[in-house]
Amino acid sequence: MLKGVSNAGLGDVGTIEEFIVNASKYGFESVDTSGNELVHWVEEIGLEEAQAFLRKYNIQIGAIGLSVEWRREEEEFKTGLSSFIREAEVASALGCRLCATYILPSTDYPPAAFMARAVRRFRTCAVILNEYDMKFGLEFVGPHHLRTTWKYPFIWTMSETIDLIEAIGKSNVGLLIDAYHCYTTGLDFAELNQLDVKKIVHVHINDAKSIPVSEVLDHDRLYPGEGVINLVKLLKQLQSIGYQGSITQEVLTQIPEDQESEQLWVKTSNAYDALFKQIEC
Amino acid sequence: MLKGVSNAGLGDVGTIEEFIVNASKYGFESVDTSGNELVHWVEEIGLEEAQAFLRKYNIQIGAIGLSVEWRREEEEFKTGLSSFIREAEVASALGCRLCATYILPSTDYPPAAFMARAVRRFRTCAVILNEYDMKFGLEFVGPHHLRTTWKYPFIWTMSETIDLIEAIGKSNVGLLIDAYHCYTTGLDFAELNQLDVKKIVHVHINDAKSIPVSEVLDHDRLYPGEGVINLVKLLKQLQSIGYQGSITQEVLTQIPEDQESEQLWVKTSNAYDALFKQIEC
Amino acid sequence: MLKGVSNAGLGDVGTIEEFIVNASKYGFESVDTSGNELVHWVEEIGLEEAQAFLRKYNIQIGAIGLSVEWRREEEEFKTGLSSFIREAEVASALGCRLCATYILPSTDYPPAAFMARAVRRFRTCAVILNEYDMKFGLEFVGPHHLRTTWKYPFIWTMSETIDLIEAIGKSNVGLLIDAYHCYTTGLDFAELNQLDVKKIVHVHINDAKSIPVSEVLDHDRLYPGEGVINLVKLLKQLQSIGYQGSITQEVLTQIPEDQESEQLWVKTSNAYDALFKQIEC
Amino acid sequence: MLKGVSNAGLGDVGTIEEFIVNASKYGFESVDTSGNELVHWVEEIGLEEAQAFLRKYNIQIGAIGLSVEWRREEEEFKTGLSSFIREAEVASALGCRLCATYILPSTDYPPAAFMARAVRRFRTCAVILNEYDMKFGLEFVGPHHLRTTWKYPFIWTMSETIDLIEAIGKSNVGLLIDAYHCYTTGLDFAELNQLDVKKIVHVHINDAKSIPVSEVLDHDRLYPGEGVINLVKLLKQLQSIGYQGSITQEVLTQIPEDQESEQLWVKTSNAYDALFKQIEC
Repeated sequence: MLKGVSNAGLGDVGTIEEFIVNASKYGFESVDTSGNELVHWVEEIGLEEAQAFLRKYNIQIGAIGLSVEWRREEEEFKTGLSSFIREAEVASALGCRLCATYILPSTDYPPAAFMARAVRRFRTCAVILNEYDMKFGLEFVGPHHLRTTWKYPFIWTMSETIDLIEAIGKSNVGLLIDAYHCYTTGLDFAELNQLDVKKIVHVHINDAKSIPVSEVLDHDRLYPGEGVINLVKLLKQLQSIGYQGSITQEVLTQIPEDQESEQLWVKTSNAYDALFKQIEC
Repeated sequence: MLKGVSNAGLGDVGTIEEFIVNASKYGFESVDTSGNELVHWVEEIGLEEAQAFLRKYNIQIGAIGLSVEWRREEEEFKTGLSSFIREAEVASALGCRLCATYILPSTDYPPAAFMARAVRRFRTCAVILNEYDMKFGLEFVGPHHLRTTWKYPFIWTMSETIDLIEAIGKSNVGLLIDAYHCYTTGLDFAELNQLDVKKIVHVHINDAKSIPVSEVLDHDRLYPGEGVINLVKLLKQLQSIGYQGSITQEVLTQIPEDQESEQLWVKTSNAYDALFKQIEC
Repeated sequence: MLKGVSNAGLGDVGTIEEFIVNASKYGFESVDTSGNELVHWVEEIGLEEAQAFLRKYNIQIGAIGLSVEWRREEEEFKTGLSSFIREAEVASALGCRLCATYILPSTDYPPAAFMARAVRRFRTCAVILNEYDMKFGLEFVGPHHLRTTWKYPFIWTMSETIDLIEAIGKSNVGLLIDAYHCYTTGLDFAELNQLDVKKIVHVHINDAKSIPVSEVLDHDRLYPGEGVINLVKLLKQLQSIGYQGSITQEVLTQIPEDQESEQLWVKTSNAYDALFKQIEC
Repeated sequence: MLKGVSNAGLGDVGTIEEFIVNASKYGFESVDTSGNELVHWVEEIGLEEAQAFLRKYNIQIGAIGLSVEWRREEEEFKTGLSSFIREAEVASALGCRLCATYILPSTDYPPAAFMARAVRRFRTCAVILNEYDMKFGLEFVGPHHLRTTWKYPFIWTMSETIDLIEAIGKSNVGLLIDAYHCYTTGLDFAELNQLDVKKIVHVHINDAKSIPVSEVLDHDRLYPGEGVINLVKLLKQLQSIGYQGSITQEVLTQIPEDQESEQLWVKTSNAYDALFKQIEC
């Protein structure tokens, strides 16, 4: 399992190069970013330079986010495909093997028909990503307040997300498991045991406040080790089923203004060291 | 376009052979039945005899219903697949090129996840049917009362059904257009004009009482020509876009006890003659 | 059925606008061109202007060719996808509903593995085209000399092409029927009768010299009516099964230097008039 | 990794129950058999009894063979589907999660079109197996003499088999890696390192005589440890990429008449003990 970071929880991570340098400096092995950022980077310094930069700092691109707008009208979806394909091409050339998106637990569209459209759109994305040797990760989202933020309930459990993955029916689609969303949907990490490890393509970690689960807010997350989620159990579970990908921090939260980026890197780095020591990885 | 009948609206049609004999006698060209009935028939008299019987009376099997239980638990779905495949095999050998099912407009399952499962299950059915050179027809169901019969709204419009067909993503899946469901979902037949005719795999006709559309009941249908649906416009529309399949009567209704089957055949036959004369087919 | 032209057989057709103006002037209803040309056109004059131009001359874009290199190495295929998607986007916005490619009857790659890669690549193209409401046409190529031009025989019959289409398994993929290739593969037009018309997405016409079929050369075609192919029978057959798309001239041939483009337009126009008169279209 | 046996190399293994009892007695954890044998067994003693029997002896069904005839005419393929689905249903209920078939390296059909049909047929099998939570394994076959046994070369390398798997495009299809076929196709086990472990669904072991590779015969295999294949390297390689499935003996060979089944079990058991000791599994 690789130690990974995203910019969520690290304040302003600077340019992609600064992000990579710091990730390396603080002991991480992969960074998540946007495809758009990678495209700009490669257009600026060239593909070979970018590849060399990653090699020099021994950092992998863990995942890029899905840039196509799949949650709204047909027209917007279609319009986004050509830049998406460019991002996949560049990310793949940089060694990135994953693109991911999250599924909000409610929607303003009648949910059954929206699901049908989502299946088709996701399949198109999966087929394109497959040409670039990339997997496609779908993340279920647990916080209860988001289930009523839009008009109709959609899906939020791991089991429903597996139903969606089966409906898409392509071999490169899998689950993005986020500790916060497991916690807020009441998923016992032991359930991962029954899962074919091949279904898990990425993992996010973070922590939750000690308040009733139904009151836990999506953008009020804690750093690993600060809260009530048993991350040691999660990581041991993933290890035992043979997961070999990234364990990437994603702390969506309001960062106090007096926190310097460096402090956040140190904090994150320490949290990872403490956590990984307990699983003897 | 072929004149077709189902048993809905004809009372007790008797054995499959009696059904075929009468369909022929009263001027029809195709009959819809169940796959199970065809399997029993072929087991009884043999495939070649059954084929010869259909040839003798110049009747095609227009469609069989989908026997697999796709609306409930996984276990039931799986259990039904082996007899379904046997039905497809026999129906196909008898020249039947279509299997169809209807989609109820509400469900007791959370609708988004149910849609995901339906997509996967329908795709499995479509892939199997394709091996037997059969298409798979999906019928949207319009009556308003059915939208609240079960816990959650599902889908009921043609456009949503096309979304579902696209999510399934197989080439042999298409629409079953039913006049009653067009009427109760407010579909203007002119909209069929914008449809790729290849998407239409079967057509049901029937008629509706002159009451507010929202009060029209699914099991209270009239015979073609008795009600307010402009069937001439529907058939002309289908003709103009090149539809060449069956126009099959399906009148779900409470038949008065004093109605003999023969009277119903005569009534249906007359209705078809009147209707088809107007479209000069 | 629409009267269509491609540039093959018309010498230098000039700019896309000149091509459209002449097509209109000489009685045609659709033109085939390249996606790349459409992209340049739209970049030059804008989408709305281009749409208006087509409307003004009452011309449709019948088909664009597939620009992605699917016949060689993986790397080339991937590299071409992003411009292909841009072409599909523009062509679709201009009302074009078809992209097509031809399948050479021999290949330098071991044929079984090459077929497997072709299936995957074509499916990716089909899935992308489907998002832009476009079909994908595959044209089998008959001339005997091409069967040994490259190292291994590949496929060249309609029936093998249908096998390929079934292997791709997407609903928007169909056959491009070319009179010359039917003739050189010994296909009796009557066989089209058994074909689901939905499988035919485009038609090319042209004619063949009165020499032994095995000696007919791919780039030595005649204009419709000049040779031995029974085009009237072909068109009547297509009409009878309900084909409603374009009948597009594609005459791959060495055009004598003294032939002016205008003469070629006149010749083509006369040939179409003579032909369509015989089928009373 | 589980120690597994098939009947190939064990002479007459007796009934399925005797096979299971001996597998358990000699230290194995899984047995491969035919779906047909499982169906008969369950029809005889009932599903629950059969499940209990497997539990009692702590044996899993590692894989069943694909019974559908996919290598010949369409009609045969279709005819076999209904018993295949019954076998999948029963095997799955007994906990079996894999069905596998082998791909002969030559064929009497023109290879490109045969590949197209194979892709479609395999996809149908994969879709059916997926409903029963089973994977579908494809085994490439290496011995050189088989490349000319039938009229045309087909495919025989791992890389071509991956092309085929990608053409099928379903998530439950993977590779069956057989030591003998790796050896006879010159595959360096180190190449497995670059493989996504998720692509490997089953492993066969056996050994090869010390003769030129091109003379190695398919039905003249040795027992693990008796020949020149570096099985320790293979197993270490599989272990390092996280393979967790069965390592199943498949020794296709002429067994001398004086060899008792018990001797063969002892020999196999000893060979496995020696082998697994070296990888400290």
